[in-house]
Amino acid sequence: MEVGELGESRVWTAALVVIGDEILSGRTQDRNIAQVATWLNVQGIRLAEVRVVPDVEDRIAEAIAALRSAHDYLFTTGGIGPTHDDITVDSIAKALGVGVVVHPEAWAILEKYYADKGGVTDARLRMARVPEGAELIRNYLSGAPGIRLGNIFILAGVPHICAGMLDALTGTLEGGRPLVSVTVGAWAPESEVADLLRQAERANEGVAIGSYPFFKQGKVGANFVVRSEEEQLARKVAGDLENALASAGYDPVEGGI
Amino acid sequence: MEVGELGESRVWTAALVVIGDEILSGRTQDRNIAQVATWLNVQGIRLAEVRVVPDVEDRIAEAIAALRSAHDYLFTTGGIGPTHDDITVDSIAKALGVGVVVHPEAWAILEKYYADKGGVTDARLRMARVPEGAELIRNYLSGAPGIRLGNIFILAGVPHICAGMLDALTGTLEGGRPLVSVTVGAWAPESEVADLLRQAERANEGVAIGSYPFFKQGKVGANFVVRSEEEQLARKVAGDLENALASAGYDPVEGGI
Repeated sequence: MEVGELGESRVWTAALVVIGDEILSGRTQDRNIAQVATWLNVQGIRLAEVRVVPDVEDRIAEAIAALRSAHDYLFTTGGIGPTHDDITVDSIAKALGVGVVVHPEAWAILEKYYADKGGVTDARLRMARVPEGAELIRNYLSGAPGIRLGNIFILAGVPHICAGMLDALTGTLEGGRPLVSVTVGAWAPESEVADLLRQAERANEGVAIGSYPFFKQGKVGANFVVRSEEEQLARKVAGDLENALASAGYDPVEGGI
Repeated sequence: MEVGELGESRVWTAALVVIGDEILSGRTQDRNIAQVATWLNVQGIRLAEVRVVPDVEDRIAEAIAALRSAHDYLFTTGGIGPTHDDITVDSIAKALGVGVVVHPEAWAILEKYYADKGGVTDARLRMARVPEGAELIRNYLSGAPGIRLGNIFILAGVPHICAGMLDALTGTLEGGRPLVSVTVGAWAPESEVADLLRQAERANEGVAIGSYPFFKQGKVGANFVVRSEEEQLARKVAGDLENALASAGYDPVEGGI
């Protein structure tokens, strides 16, 4: 087997803007950062930055303007429902300097979805509004679609609806090689093995090793996460690390924690 | 009772920078945004923006530089352990243009903590390094302290250690009036009551109403969250909203969801 040139692979990156007072007030535990990140990894795209902003038009527009050209893709979650605090579409249109229009296909979807639920009221029609030029992202769960405009993907804030929209996008975005993570868990205080980790990372170009301590069963341990776009390399470095930790007398954590 | 002038109260704000590849890769579900936000509310400080950045010095420094003067306080979580990927202190020092020094008190704390655990190795001594001019934030749980430098608070990433450092700071920061949230849960599709919500918000200066839909027990409902610095006003608006929803025929959700 010939080894391909590493230079050929470029890293595709995305940013995420989480929109919502409920996250910043601490009332709601965000679930979308982790789920968007995990989904992006599988698409071969790296989540490179996240911003959480309030339901304030200027603050949303500012984040969009700052991030949309810095990354290949920009995702947003939240603020696309029917109520007065749902201002994501208007804020993004403002950031891009485009108008807001009712998307005929979105309207049709809502008409069908609400046919036996009282019809499309003015409030519900808000969910058919999109920045001019946008396409829809199908939502098989609750009618109101997500929105795509160029490299911007506007998703729902309710985690399972957001997940459905990500499903609809699966395989449609160009990406690079997925980042592979291999975790080695050991009953080792990270401060005792810091040198070993540093050396392992330095010796292996294209590998990053993260160290995440925990305290369980009355004992100190850590998960060491080896990340690389090269699956074989990640597995090799993780295997070597496992052996080095065992040689140094640290018990493995079976199955990780 | 005389009503105080609203103009007297100013809003104190904070930003949070969550530092760590493990959050951006989706491997770790962040818990610190919600816990820092909740704690800040009690101190009368509003969390106004969050950024999640990778373990990359320039990216951390950039976020710090952008946020430190835009808010009264700036918090960071993560990246203050003993391993090579713990670069928060160096990145913040870089952003501020100050050096990094070993804090003698932090060193003494580590000497004591590690006295019966093999002593302070080079790796462990990393946890005594602080940007020049910094003070310590006590950590009653695991030795290595947090760090305060002016309006910047550098906290641990492990959630329960972060919580301990927040405890140590409780009551020490100047803030305004806490934001009070009163939640009204109803079995009402938010799209049917959007007008009612909008009117309630418009009619009450200093009140924000958020609408958070859910799907439970096979039914559609929503939590309507009334937020204000005026507790009485929040309770009054929430009570009025509850009555209006009941009059419109929507059942309350007992105890919220």
